[in-house]
Amino acid sequence: MSKKIFFTPGPSALYFTVESHIKRALKLQVPEINHRSKQAAGYFQEVTENLRALMGIPKGYHIFYLSSATEIWERLIQNCIQEKSTHLSYGAFSNRFYDFSTKLGYNASSINSALGEIPDFKMNAIDSDTELISLALNETSSGVTYPVERIYDLNQHFPDAILAVDGVSAFPVIDIDFSQIDSAYFSVQKCFGLPAGLGVWIVNDKCIAKAEKKLKDGQNIGTYQSLPNLLKNAQKYQPTYTTNVLDVYLLAKVTADMLEKGIDVIRREATYKSSLLQHMVNEHPDLTHFVNQTELRSKTVTVANSISDSDYIINELSKKGLVIGNGYGDLKSKQIRIASFPTHSKELIEMLVDEINKISY
Amino acid sequence: MSKKIFFTPGPSALYFTVESHIKRALKLQVPEINHRSKQAAGYFQEVTENLRALMGIPKGYHIFYLSSATEIWERLIQNCIQEKSTHLSYGAFSNRFYDFSTKLGYNASSINSALGEIPDFKMNAIDSDTELISLALNETSSGVTYPVERIYDLNQHFPDAILAVDGVSAFPVIDIDFSQIDSAYFSVQKCFGLPAGLGVWIVNDKCIAKAEKKLKDGQNIGTYQSLPNLLKNAQKYQPTYTTNVLDVYLLAKVTADMLEKGIDVIRREATYKSSLLQHMVNEHPDLTHFVNQTELRSKTVTVANSISDSDYIINELSKKGLVIGNGYGDLKSKQIRIASFPTHSKELIEMLVDEINKISY
Repeated sequence: MSKKIFFTPGPSALYFTVESHIKRALKLQVPEINHRSKQAAGYFQEVTENLRALMGIPKGYHIFYLSSATEIWERLIQNCIQEKSTHLSYGAFSNRFYDFSTKLGYNASSINSALGEIPDFKMNAIDSDTELISLALNETSSGVTYPVERIYDLNQHFPDAILAVDGVSAFPVIDIDFSQIDSAYFSVQKCFGLPAGLGVWIVNDKCIAKAEKKLKDGQNIGTYQSLPNLLKNAQKYQPTYTTNVLDVYLLAKVTADMLEKGIDVIRREATYKSSLLQHMVNEHPDLTHFVNQTELRSKTVTVANSISDSDYIINELSKKGLVIGNGYGDLKSKQIRIASFPTHSKELIEMLVDEINKISY
Repeated sequence: MSKKIFFTPGPSALYFTVESHIKRALKLQVPEINHRSKQAAGYFQEVTENLRALMGIPKGYHIFYLSSATEIWERLIQNCIQEKSTHLSYGAFSNRFYDFSTKLGYNASSINSALGEIPDFKMNAIDSDTELISLALNETSSGVTYPVERIYDLNQHFPDAILAVDGVSAFPVIDIDFSQIDSAYFSVQKCFGLPAGLGVWIVNDKCIAKAEKKLKDGQNIGTYQSLPNLLKNAQKYQPTYTTNVLDVYLLAKVTADMLEKGIDVIRREATYKSSLLQHMVNEHPDLTHFVNQTELRSKTVTVANSISDSDYIINELSKKGLVIGNGYGDLKSKQIRIASFPTHSKELIEMLVDEINKISY
């Protein structure tokens, strides 16, 4: 049985070195060691230093390891909002952060756009006393990227608010100046190509101070995943619970591989691969771009409308062992979604494009 | 480099079939598939059916897959307590559930005992209107087991309360009549011998109804891990977030292996292995039992006081590649803790006992 190649936007193909790292991890008995042992602390330190180097995360920003990006939405809300939050909502994932804030009883506002776009708003549409502004750098459901310059504008206009960036299918491909945001997070089964079960949360001291203020004001900030507790443990390179240490080890090794390859190379290749995919959509008789504005098209997830049921293209590719994604939610059978993550080589994307070009209704 | 053998009480040795299951999982590309795909649903169904068969979990009890037992403490509190809870506290883990309830702002009472014992109390020590009673079937920190008959007594006296049992280092070795409790939970890195990163939560309809009542009363039950949302997804064998599907697959396979071996055999062997360990402690000139009452001694975690610094024994064994645990918390260098989980064969425990018998100060 020959293996399939996954171009789905998460979970996706494993990073090409993961299988050998898993074998090595089993030799080193990584899943058997204590999560608070020196050996484990070594892995937590290694992954933290590698992420700092790879993504340019400055001093004063802390990195914590939780179970998923979904959990991190809840923890951000619990720790960093006392009353009021604002959520830029332009797809399933950015919307869900707003839903969580609302469900947890906060005064949450959302600023929306149609799918395939990003919200068009004036700065005064956001309350000046909002405590947190959330947005997704890459909206995995629609294939839209949020230009970083606009994020920096938000930072200029709302210096007191916590600016929280969902980097789930963007990091480490999309470069962001961390000094202009307060928090970011991602899960590891997208661009990092790891088995699911780990979420990485980056916060600055402003987030910690907010959690401490909230606690001082007699409000709840949760239990083991409160920011003060996460910080206290991270300073010893320890987790707050029995974390997925195997994934921590694998992330340490994959980030080392990425550093060796060079983040600039990874980013240049991402630009090339998304150009190939966009060109393919431009030229293909059965496909049109879902994201009309070229500057909003994601470099890691390409989304195209199909003139007829997208299952046809998906199934034809599937016969060749190539797995691409369908549309998200209601658009399931009307779109295709293709990931071009760091593990997908230029040659793989070229081959995929060739195969898609052979298909028409 | 020859491999070490971990007798630590969690994380511990991997179940002896796990390594080959991981290799098979990589061939099947389990970490790459979508967590809501048919293939993934197949694994969720398989593990659920296997757990029901292995542990005798009856109809009307639902099984959910979260990130850890630690998370499940929080979710139990969020979903199943409106005001008042009672926690039997006799070690680090049972105490922590009480701490969580207190931190989350509930009117939580704890009924305590010294370490190495279980609370001695009259039923009227528990408020008749308490909504939840928690206890640990096996307190991993002290090596104490809570006799199931006493749990059934609690059920008799407090039929309206939700009786929540921590089975972390007990399941599937300790047999419990699920019809006499309302909820139980465990994480997979103890008796099931899996890489950490998955918590299993079992609830009956009373727990679901409580969460629904809480929501109806305008109280918060969280977001993606609320019981109604967990149930809605579990009915389709789907997770509520991008779960550690690799661990779900591995748990499906390990539970199948255990079913093939037979739960009765596993339980008989556990009795034999703990007898060996207890006999060793009885006879060893440098060791004494931490748990005085024989009927309270755990079948899966044996804890002994050492007459001098326990590092000596731990280090001597370590030279032979045998890793046992130190004491928990303040008792770190005063005790040893030894796991006898299903993956530890009778022969392994016999060998360990022989080696410990060769050591004296």
